[in-house]
This record gives sequence, structure tokens and C-alpha cells, in this order.
Amino acid sequence: MTFTERLSDAVRKHGPLCVGLDPRLDNIPSAIRSRHRSSAAAYEEFCLAVLEIVRPYAGVVKPQAAFFEQAGPDGMTVLRTIQQQARAMGYVTILDAKRGDIASTATAYAEAAFSPEVWHADAITVNPYLGADAVEPFITRARAANGGVIVLVRTSNPGGGLFQNLVCDGRPLYRHVADAVNRWNDGRGDVGAVVGATHPDELKELRAAMPGVWFLVPGYGAQGGTAADVRAAYPHAIVNSSRGITFPFQPDAIDWREQIGQAAQRAQNDLRM
Amino acid sequence: MTFTERLSDAVRKHGPLCVGLDPRLDNIPSAIRSRHRSSAAAYEEFCLAVLEIVRPYAGVVKPQAAFFEQAGPDGMTVLRTIQQQARAMGYVTILDAKRGDIASTATAYAEAAFSPEVWHADAITVNPYLGADAVEPFITRARAANGGVIVLVRTSNPGGGLFQNLVCDGRPLYRHVADAVNRWNDGRGDVGAVVGATHPDELKELRAAMPGVWFLVPGYGAQGGTAADVRAAYPHAIVNSSRGITFPFQPDAIDWREQIGQAAQRAQNDLRM
Repeated sequence: MTFTERLSDAVRKHGPLCVGLDPRLDNIPSAIRSRHRSSAAAYEEFCLAVLEIVRPYAGVVKPQAAFFEQAGPDGMTVLRTIQQQARAMGYVTILDAKRGDIASTATAYAEAAFSPEVWHADAITVNPYLGADAVEPFITRARAANGGVIVLVRTSNPGGGLFQNLVCDGRPLYRHVADAVNRWNDGRGDVGAVVGATHPDELKELRAAMPGVWFLVPGYGAQGGTAADVRAAYPHAIVNSSRGITFPFQPDAIDWREQIGQAAQRAQNDLRM
Repeated sequence: MTFTERLSDAVRKHGPLCVGLDPRLDNIPSAIRSRHRSSAAAYEEFCLAVLEIVRPYAGVVKPQAAFFEQAGPDGMTVLRTIQQQARAMGYVTILDAKRGDIASTATAYAEAAFSPEVWHADAITVNPYLGADAVEPFITRARAANGGVIVLVRTSNPGGGLFQNLVCDGRPLYRHVADAVNRWNDGRGDVGAVVGATHPDELKELRAAMPGVWFLVPGYGAQGGTAADVRAAYPHAIVNSSRGITFPFQPDAIDWREQIGQAAQRAQNDLRM
């Protein structure tokens, strides 16, 4: 199946919820922390548990590379384990790495992203600042692997507008990036866009500017975006929640599994199409 | 010593040459490849040899994270080894990772970059597309570690102008990023700028726009930039060459060590201030 078919299938079966895996040692259940000497090992046990718990409620998971990298090479080994297990469980996996480099360097990152021996992701997030030669090597490699590339267009963070909202040749920078995403996607559905939920008017504007392009929408939940805000991006949208799903509990909570399950179920209901 | 003092010291002693470590299996000497089953192990032997060979000719080295990541978690272990060895040999190390993410995620990448247990870099390259909240966590962490942050402003790749050269509110996007770099640097010298050698007029323009800011100049050598082009960035400049120094030979050459040494010596002479 192509990336688009797998993504459509996941959203049809489970709704648009994407669970972000951002393991932070301070938030991991105390019971898990106490069993492990290294943060990497604690991340592995916790993330594998989350994959089991949220399986009924989400078809897509998004490991955040930064937190695994913070745990060093051992953390990267855990990232690989989590990616492989998520894929084996039938999830669509998006590696949130926001990579951006050129030519053969971009190809090296793309090889890592899609290679079965490294991250084996279904899709990777990519930063467009370096231009077409920073994005196209990812698209080439993704297409060879039936994968996808998701390009940062308008991010959800409070300071995201510093450059993205600059008016260039009469339109905001993010609209120029949106035009490039349309060209790269070329009607196929395997080049998507990151568009934050925290700027609802821009989300609507960008939905109209990129018809048929899959949106990865961050900023729902803990960052303040509501289900009503993100609905503007439907139907070709997946909506990420990280902390709101994976860390709704205090670290010493005994019922952390139930709290994660309930948070995922609530989000699934809240986001119903 | 601060980052700026160490960088000034390195350039005074060895000149502005920065040797980029971009290991590619196809280019590694056959003698090394034949001794190892994994690309990671071959990268380690080759990069450690390069560090020894170029030591008289360069004060700064720049491992490219992508090529180590392509070799998986074992490659990341080698990246750590190379970073630690380079530092132990007295090099200033720039981790070329072009990271860009927000808030606590940016902090996680920054922790990885500067932590003695992970990459232990003197500086890291950062992508500004996500705005101030994607760059400032790196600066905060860098300052705590006496390190530096080098922000992509105008990259050397042929397609780099797609967004960077858009005219926004009357000036190219890269000038807006340059203004932000000036604010972040705040006269300290620990927030630098990536400005490619392949656009000499823009290099001059940006030198004037960011007085006193350290430039990391890619694009010299294999990419076409000349010593005359890069001289416009002096004196606060380091000039990167990767393939031109580390892969001047055919893989089956017996004298690859001598060829690397000669290439580094030639570049050092060519770039004299």
C-alpha cells in the first residue's frame, strides 16, 4: 500500500489522532524510573507501554527524535526499537526530526529515516528553509519506500511567526512554502504540511491553499488548539497530541496506564470527524 | 575560555580552515573498508585518521550528523567518539546538525549537543525557520556550556534562494534572519551565521550587516567558492571544506593519508588571512 492509502486507512479506522512520543525523564512514571539505571531504558519501557495502551484510539504515532537523542546513542537504539514495534503493531509512524540539509547530506538523513535497518519510518518531518534541494532528496527516497514527507509550513509555537509571517512579494512566507508543497505533492498525497492548530485563521487559509494535501496539525490540547479549530483541516488531517495523552498523570500515580487510555479515548472522541 | 576565545585562538594558530567530516562508505579508503564489517566502524577508523592528519592545518572540525545517523545507533556512537577525540586533541568542534524545534524539544537537542555524555560539541548549527523559540533554547544551553550556536542565514546550495532570497517587507528574508542573529549575538560572539561562499555579493552584504559576528562559510572548494570569495568574510570567519580535504583520492589509493595532508596544507595556504 502507498503512504496515502495507509494513512487514509488509519484515519478511517481510528480517527485523526496522532500520539506524539516525547519521553521526558521527569514525567515518566516513578515505578518505571525506579526499575532502570538509564533514561534510555526507562524511555523504552514507557513508550512500548504507550503503544499498547493507545492502540484502540490512534492509528498514527509520532516519536520526537530530540528526546531520544538527548539520551545519547542508547536513546537512538531505543528510537529504533520503538519505530520497529510501532510498525509491527500496524501504526503509521511519523519520525518528527525536522531535518533539513542539502544534496547528499539530505539523502543520508532520508536513508536513515526510511531504511528498515535504521528508523524505518513511514514519514519524516522536514524543514524547508534551505529550499528545494533540501526537500527533494527526502521526497525521492520516500517515494522509493512508499513513504511520505511532511514539510513545516506554519508551526504552532508562539514565536513561529517571526519569519513565517513576514510578507514576501505580497504574501506571507508560509504561503510561498505552501505553494512549494503543492508542487512537490503534485496531487499524490505523499508530501504533507505541518500547520499548527494555534492559528485557526491561518489553518483555514492554508487548507484552502493546499487542497488534498495531508496536514499534520500540532498544537491541539496542551498547546491550546481546540477540536473546533482543527476540524477546519479535515478530512486530510492528522492531529497530534503528545503531553496531553502520554503525561496526564503525576509521576507517582499508580493508575498511569488507565489515565493514558482515558486521555487517548477522550481525544479520539473529541476529534471525531 | 569562552567559545569566542577558543575560536579566535584556533584561527590565530591554524588559520580559518574548518575540516568537515562527512564520511561516505563509497569514498572511504578500500584498505579501511576491507577491515570492517559495519560502515560505522569504517567511519570511526577513517575519521580518527583524518583528525590526526589535518591537526597541523586546521583548528576547527565539523562532523556532519547526517552521515553518522545513516549508519544507525552504531553510527551515533561513532559520532560521540569522534567528537570526544577531536575535543581531546584541542580542536574546536562544530556539530553540523541543523536542528530546529521549539521550547522543550529544542532544549532536548541542545542538551544532546553540549552534554559531555552525548555530543559534547563546542557549537551546533541551527535552522531559524521556527523563529526565536527554536533558537533561544540553544543559545541558553550554549552559554551555560561556554559554547556557541551558528544559525543558517544564507546557505551555499544552488536552490538556497527559493525562500531565503524572497523579498519580505523590502529586504530579502536572509537579511531578516541576519537582524535576528545580531540581536541574539548581542555583541558576545557566541551566536554565529552560516553564509555560503557561493554567493559572493551576498557574503559581502551580510558581512556588513553582521559586523563582529562569526561566519561559518560553506561552499569553498568542491562547491565552487574561491579563497578570494571567502576573504570578504574575514577576520571573524571559518571556512569549511569537506570532500575537498577528506576525499581527494580514489578509494584504492595507497597514499590516501598523504593526499589528505597535502589537500589540507594547500587549503590552509590558500585561505591565509
